Amino acid sequence: MTEYGQITDYETFELGDVRLQSGATLRGAKLAYKTHGTLNERKDNAILYPTSYSATHKNEEFRIGEEKALDPGKYFIIQVNMLANGLSSSPSNTPMPFNQARFPNVTVLDNVLCQHRLVTEKFGIERLALVVGFSMGAQQTFQWGAAFPDMVQRIAPICGTASTTPHNFVFIDGFTSALRADAAWNNGFYDKQPVIGIRAMGRVYAGWGLSQAFYYRRLYLEHGFSSLEDYIVTNWEGNFLKKDANNLLAMAWTWQHADIGMTPGCGGSREKALGSIKAKAMIMPGQTDLYFPPVDVEYEAQFIPGAEVRVIPSVYGHAAGGSLSPEDMAFVEKGLKDLLEME
Amino acid sequence: MTEYGQITDYETFELGDVRLQSGATLRGAKLAYKTHGTLNERKDNAILYPTSYSATHKNEEFRIGEEKALDPGKYFIIQVNMLANGLSSSPSNTPMPFNQARFPNVTVLDNVLCQHRLVTEKFGIERLALVVGFSMGAQQTFQWGAAFPDMVQRIAPICGTASTTPHNFVFIDGFTSALRADAAWNNGFYDKQPVIGIRAMGRVYAGWGLSQAFYYRRLYLEHGFSSLEDYIVTNWEGNFLKKDANNLLAMAWTWQHADIGMTPGCGGSREKALGSIKAKAMIMPGQTDLYFPPVDVEYEAQFIPGAEVRVIPSVYGHAAGGSLSPEDMAFVEKGLKDLLEME
Repeated sequence: MTEYGQITDYETFELGDVRLQSGATLRGAKLAYKTHGTLNERKDNAILYPTSYSATHKNEEFRIGEEKALDPGKYFIIQVNMLANGLSSSPSNTPMPFNQARFPNVTVLDNVLCQHRLVTEKFGIERLALVVGFSMGAQQTFQWGAAFPDMVQRIAPICGTASTTPHNFVFIDGFTSALRADAAWNNGFYDKQPVIGIRAMGRVYAGWGLSQAFYYRRLYLEHGFSSLEDYIVTNWEGNFLKKDANNLLAMAWTWQHADIGMTPGCGGSREKALGSIKAKAMIMPGQTDLYFPPVDVEYEAQFIPGAEVRVIPSVYGHAAGGSLSPEDMAFVEKGLKDLLEME
Repeated sequence: MTEYGQITDYETFELGDVRLQSGATLRGAKLAYKTHGTLNERKDNAILYPTSYSATHKNEEFRIGEEKALDPGKYFIIQVNMLANGLSSSPSNTPMPFNQARFPNVTVLDNVLCQHRLVTEKFGIERLALVVGFSMGAQQTFQWGAAFPDMVQRIAPICGTASTTPHNFVFIDGFTSALRADAAWNNGFYDKQPVIGIRAMGRVYAGWGLSQAFYYRRLYLEHGFSSLEDYIVTNWEGNFLKKDANNLLAMAWTWQHADIGMTPGCGGSREKALGSIKAKAMIMPGQTDLYFPPVDVEYEAQFIPGAEVRVIPSVYGHAAGGSLSPEDMAFVEKGLKDLLEME
């Protein structure tokens, strides 16, 4: 039983049939989105905020609010759900014959091109004050900057790289292999969720999502969990069990194949694509992130003319960009506010 | 089809019925070992070299040879196979009813106590010039130093900690969950190996065994592999497929529960156990090791009076302590030689 049906606080933008990078067609494509605040008359106060892996807009709403950088009293904030996340077009909600394992592979660029139609066709926005995202949301953020350099004024990629590195690819390969090891997965054509595989995936992911020091210091005890096992079952098995297995695998495919070098006109060059970004960039990797480590983020940032890198000084691993640690949240808030003040 | 039957260059020491730390009995226990060189008359040139996770003595023989620190012309080197590795008593070779999933849990200390009987009863050795081991072999090495402080002159733990840290525990939990997700595992009572689960375990392990930089620089291409996928299938799926699933899980249990604080007389205190080590210790963690990171090794080393820590400057992750990189091997060689020269 997935959580998707229980989430209803969003609207849907119908895209019709969308030709994908691969040549496949995503028929009857739709994007689920939620807006906060009001678009002003000049239409220059819009912020786009795409979701991260396995998340919906609800999981990332914590960053929006009065007094925060993403202040709906000041900005028109569009949270857009990534394709395959269960609310936008996904294996779990696409009609036959493109349902389940037949859902076509979508790239980060496919996501961004669909989002561009939402922003321009639905809202008539020609310029975005900011694109901001965490993790896979950061990948979409970089891709926005490269695909539409004249449209994006600022980007804030948090805990993510523009292109997925080989080690990150291997990490994703590991947790997806754990899910697929469950015969109940049945090559994607299951009637019931392959819960053993999803639980195994959660247990694999647990070691990667936080840092060695997080576990060493038993910081999960400070967040309402009574033991290591309680944390792993509740947070890792429990959260992935709310999702659909094919959705998890489809988003993992998107992640593994994130490659900003595929931006049209860049001839496959990551460096050229990064160099084409005109937005002011506030790039915030997590100091102890095990799959988007600062070194990979810093490598890419050097090619973006208007980039500043601020490493989040945190033992929360990849979750430094999330809502677990108040200190990390304050650090990211500061970065976002500083960026929004830059002209 | 496991590789165990094909390995025949070893001898077996019969231990009879061994009472384990847990209270269980390992009946008809045996240790598989291989010796190199000759024990001198004073019996003071013996080196004990226990195996690491999933390895046999054959995988670790690369460190032994003329001109090397472990020179069989000078030393009497005993390679001892860890319990559950397929050659010593293991789920795969123990008769009913303690075969397969009923093989009892064995600890690092259980291993060391069995090895102590081999060393003293079989060879009449009262003092070891060195105990050396890699990874789980390092855990046994530390445990030797704490359990028999007056017997061990030197220890050289390579890429390992004395006690398994919480994050390391979670990492192991991840890859064992991937194996168990395969229904063919059947709670350990299978007729054929659960090959899908073993392959998934290999793919999970791949991301942990080397470092981010190893994959970033595509160093697998320098070691006879033609692509990332070729490397993962050959090295990770392929090597684990030679093993028995229950053996892999039994050794993983030993690893997860490594706790030098359980040394008799130490009252559960890791620090006290480490402080009881009288051996000169040359401790060599790998700079980019993701599950035995230098910080954890250095924490423990501070409690050992005669310890020197030398971090292997390497991008080979945990494999810095293995045979992949000639530079890493030379670094470790130097450390071992320097240690053996210390009186």
